[in-house]
Amino acid sequence: MQTLVVVSHPKIETSNTQQFLKESIAGLDSVTWYHLDVQAEFDLAAETARIQAADRIIFQFPLYWYSAPASLKQWLDAVWLKQVVYNEHGGLLTGKDLGFVVSFSQPARDYQLGGREQFSLSEILTPYRALAAKTGLRLLPPLTIAQFAYMTEAQQQALLVRYQQLLTLPQPQKFNQQAQWFIDRLRTYQSSTLGELAADQLQDQQDALERLQQTISDLKVGEAE
Amino acid sequence: MQTLVVVSHPKIETSNTQQFLKESIAGLDSVTWYHLDVQAEFDLAAETARIQAADRIIFQFPLYWYSAPASLKQWLDAVWLKQVVYNEHGGLLTGKDLGFVVSFSQPARDYQLGGREQFSLSEILTPYRALAAKTGLRLLPPLTIAQFAYMTEAQQQALLVRYQQLLTLPQPQKFNQQAQWFIDRLRTYQSSTLGELAADQLQDQQDALERLQQTISDLKVGEAE
Repeated sequence: MQTLVVVSHPKIETSNTQQFLKESIAGLDSVTWYHLDVQAEFDLAAETARIQAADRIIFQFPLYWYSAPASLKQWLDAVWLKQVVYNEHGGLLTGKDLGFVVSFSQPARDYQLGGREQFSLSEILTPYRALAAKTGLRLLPPLTIAQFAYMTEAQQQALLVRYQQLLTLPQPQKFNQQAQWFIDRLRTYQSSTLGELAADQLQDQQDALERLQQTISDLKVGEAE
Repeated sequence: MQTLVVVSHPKIETSNTQQFLKESIAGLDSVTWYHLDVQAEFDLAAETARIQAADRIIFQFPLYWYSAPASLKQWLDAVWLKQVVYNEHGGLLTGKDLGFVVSFSQPARDYQLGGREQFSLSEILTPYRALAAKTGLRLLPPLTIAQFAYMTEAQQQALLVRYQQLLTLPQPQKFNQQAQWFIDRLRTYQSSTLGELAADQLQDQQDALERLQQTISDLKVGEAE
């Protein structure tokens, strides 16, 4: 699965969040980092090929006035044209995934009914929901990064895991895919006995879980009969 | 009352809608037409003064991907800065009006639950609702222009009236202000007896309406006692 991370950030060199995200995907062959603000202009053929090659597109940006910075809109206005990337029957984008990595400086709880910002991220992202509905993109739940500057190292590690999973797992919300991701990662620490043991442990639990899920599923079929 | 019409349209010379709107406000001293896409850059002092001078700000644009074209976002990102146009206590924008003139090529009925576009304009404009809530701007209902190309002359005239009223009336939704606007306009046709008569007629109806409203209001007070 190929993932295109479309980054919209006019001052990326001053953003610790974006630097952290960029470093955390170093070495992942299936992920392309594409920073819009440094592009001089958009060549339609190259942009179309870039989109075509991706199974998943991620819009990654800091929230400026409840939207992405202007560069994402410039790209959409210039490249996402009717008959080029979509048409009445779907087109190039249909069936691909659309995900979001949205950062902001307020606590996450501010973005809800009764919170300081009054609107939820799901509401604020409505224009992108409409865009996905129009083009046949499948929406993934947004990954939000609230107050990166105040995160502990453990919180940053958890973010890194969720970010890598969003970018690489076919279904990043599925528990068993998340578990498998941990198992695969731990197995790569060849020299570490601890890593191997943890991986075995996770694998055992994963197997047990799947057996239980199968049992419950069988029981439900019995009920239905 | 001074109104600043902030126009975001990258190809305005090809837009009959925008040309029509521009012509329909020619000669209105209280209205400033400000086309973002022809600005080379934004001088912060000049932009701040422009905003300060306005009692009402109108965002006027064609709907591109369920939002304004990129130039409006460029302006907001560059000019609407914390401590410049707003702060924790409100700031420059507090108490001003924010209105919208939004054009699109689909029928108006497409923008609703169950319609082709699935989302209403009120939902699509959520980022601007959040912006207004943050800065203390008072929202006016959007003026939507659906399928301008198919409008009859009578429909265009009706649009012109609603547009001028949105830009010049202190409370453009109030029936009596709309009526007064017609009366004022008709009186200016000095040479036209018909215009005078129509104005008299409207004025009489307006007086009668206000008397009735007062009577109803008195009755309600009586009920409450």
